[in-house]
Amino acid sequence: MNALGLVSTRLCAGLMCRRSAVNLSSLRFSSGMTLSQIDEEVAKLLQLKAQLGGDEGKHVFVLKTAKGTRDYNPKQMAIREKVFNIIISCFKRHGAETIDTPVFELKETLTGKYGEDSKLIYDLKDQGGELLSLRYDLTVPFARYLAMNKITNIKRYHIAKVYRRDNPAMTRGRYREFYQCDFDIAGQYDAMIPDAECLKIVYEILNELDLGDFRIKSYLIEYLSIKINVVFDLSLARGLDYYTGVIYEAILSQTIPALVSTPAEQNGADEAGVSVGSVAGGGRYDGLVGMFDPKGRKVPCVGVSIGIERIFSIMEQKAEASSEKVRTTETQVLVASAQKNLLEERLKLTNALWNEGIKAEVLYKKNPKLLSQLQHCEETGIPLVAILGEQELKDGVVKLRNVVSREEVDVPRADLVDEIKKRTL
Amino acid sequence: MNALGLVSTRLCAGLMCRRSAVNLSSLRFSSGMTLSQIDEEVAKLLQLKAQLGGDEGKHVFVLKTAKGTRDYNPKQMAIREKVFNIIISCFKRHGAETIDTPVFELKETLTGKYGEDSKLIYDLKDQGGELLSLRYDLTVPFARYLAMNKITNIKRYHIAKVYRRDNPAMTRGRYREFYQCDFDIAGQYDAMIPDAECLKIVYEILNELDLGDFRIKSYLIEYLSIKINVVFDLSLARGLDYYTGVIYEAILSQTIPALVSTPAEQNGADEAGVSVGSVAGGGRYDGLVGMFDPKGRKVPCVGVSIGIERIFSIMEQKAEASSEKVRTTETQVLVASAQKNLLEERLKLTNALWNEGIKAEVLYKKNPKLLSQLQHCEETGIPLVAILGEQELKDGVVKLRNVVSREEVDVPRADLVDEIKKRTL
Repeated sequence: MNALGLVSTRLCAGLMCRRSAVNLSSLRFSSGMTLSQIDEEVAKLLQLKAQLGGDEGKHVFVLKTAKGTRDYNPKQMAIREKVFNIIISCFKRHGAETIDTPVFELKETLTGKYGEDSKLIYDLKDQGGELLSLRYDLTVPFARYLAMNKITNIKRYHIAKVYRRDNPAMTRGRYREFYQCDFDIAGQYDAMIPDAECLKIVYEILNELDLGDFRIKSYLIEYLSIKINVVFDLSLARGLDYYTGVIYEAILSQTIPALVSTPAEQNGADEAGVSVGSVAGGGRYDGLVGMFDPKGRKVPCVGVSIGIERIFSIMEQKAEASSEKVRTTETQVLVASAQKNLLEERLKLTNALWNEGIKAEVLYKKNPKLLSQLQHCEETGIPLVAILGEQELKDGVVKLRNVVSREEVDVPRADLVDEIKKRTL
Repeated sequence: MNALGLVSTRLCAGLMCRRSAVNLSSLRFSSGMTLSQIDEEVAKLLQLKAQLGGDEGKHVFVLKTAKGTRDYNPKQMAIREKVFNIIISCFKRHGAETIDTPVFELKETLTGKYGEDSKLIYDLKDQGGELLSLRYDLTVPFARYLAMNKITNIKRYHIAKVYRRDNPAMTRGRYREFYQCDFDIAGQYDAMIPDAECLKIVYEILNELDLGDFRIKSYLIEYLSIKINVVFDLSLARGLDYYTGVIYEAILSQTIPALVSTPAEQNGADEAGVSVGSVAGGGRYDGLVGMFDPKGRKVPCVGVSIGIERIFSIMEQKAEASSEKVRTTETQVLVASAQKNLLEERLKLTNALWNEGIKAEVLYKKNPKLLSQLQHCEETGIPLVAILGEQELKDGVVKLRNVVSREEVDVPRADLVDEIKKRTL
């Protein structure tokens, strides 16, 4: 037993004395632990300690997200929204509907679908109900949905998080919670037209995201009337068991250099930057739905999955590298004042602007300084300030200031909404 | 032991013979089981049976979602999108950012926050890592996020699913997986202005969703410069432990009758229809963030949660009751042909329309009948059909047909995109 093991065991023993009912069966120690296993065991012990109140009776929190997961901050969310908008617009342009499925499925639904990878499935604790697991991808829940509702024709997209107990030591930069972004066409159709449409979608999305040159490789394309350069690649004839026909993959040609400020393990990049790699992939899986049907009825399916997490990483790095600031709000105007005792007037104007559909903010202070109001605009990218003062109120105008150019102009209250709309189109 | 218990036990015994390594410790039987517990035990046994191949060696799937969860079909998703768009627009109008947090947290993060309700938390199985639980609400992860990132000022919204092992026998029509839709303002500010903004947001959202009359009740409003009728109600001074100031709740005045076609337990309604009930609620919780800070530093917070699942139910029932069909796609035009051997031409035109940003579909058949193409439009609400024939190709035109009025007009290929845009604004 190594030193850490010893320490851990002593800590456990101490905890046992304090509350003997604690279940310690989940804590295991051996000299063959990897660093990442040690981290997990330490985190688990600290949690346990915190629950018990610790040695000094203090409540010590482990202030972190679960291993392999992360929060998205407002800036990351703004980038995520931009990427999703482009992708969803493309799916809608192709006439797709969308569905959603629960984050967990009966454990049995996932059994036998992922081969060796099944060990990466998160199971829920048996708390006296059904045996449940977190979804591992969106394809198996989609097939379950089709079989359960006896749907034989659908073109749908589904964007949601999936869960894999990947070992970050093995697969650097992968998250245990991450988005999948799938487009699939189910139905018995002619001449591989749906297969070609999936490729077209990959092409359109990668083009619009403007990620640089990419290649699309395919193992099998019998029919393709749309104009996309596709490289044939026999090595694609592997991967998940469920593929039965065409398989394809889109690969970016360029490496985007990693920035020093974003640790490799936290942004999906390997040490050399975002690796030249797959950003989309998919294929035909005609047998999967039949696995769920009591009579084994087949529903032919073809689909594509956009590698959205890698795309987020690239877009985040591009945003870091660019001089342009990512806005996290869409506020058009800040209602401000340079004078005291005008809180009520500021609130009244803000409220009027909201009612007219203008995106407006007001500082939550009785008497904020004009400088701090202007600073708030500069920090968050608000382009306009509507300034109220005793004189403006008397004259029935508002001083409208352009934050960047610092130009100011008096606008009659009645024209204010139109003027803001005109300037923030 | 009741009859079902006996049957179950015999089934277990049979399974034990087939594979003795199966862990049956999670299966418990007693004569005091409720109907819902029996359902769960039966489902668990059927799962187990399916995993083992069943008595006849056949693989029998239990084709269902987990108890208390549901899929959203395309129609429900379309309604959901509409509701979210209204709510998110309102949050953005008020200058809010958005964040996202993982679906599970360290179990310890949730400990001690929910009092008696803690028993409803879903735990993940200990698979050798940290002890994890599915989030129970969005407020505790928000507080953890603020403390972890030392954020003292933020106005953010968060729309995501949360998880509660509610017993449907006790609380009819509640899901175990459901959306929460939260808006919160954190920071040390003057004069309850953020509190008033939260109320204003409830008011704007309920107004725009057009759900009928509603009342807003509040336990405490010291300052409110915006014009909303608020009823004071001392009975609100209860609920979650973490409230420390104002508490409020919005209640619809009218009952919307339940439709026969939507079973009460599946749409969030009770037997008498969607009950007159709370559709939004919130309050001030100045102490929660400090619970996560090692030094107990407080971050004052006030927020509101929109009862989005109840709103979905009401909107779904309104859609059912209305004669207007809910569209699940946004397709503007179907590219069709009345003649054979024009697949290539149909694909070419469709592709050209996609490239111009037009939402277009084409049937995946070599030679579909015109009638089935028109039928597809009627079923899915596509307003226009672009019809190609030998003659049209020769003349360089496309026959554009209005699906509802059945009017047809020849449009030169060069003008087609503009004509489609003009007609589908």
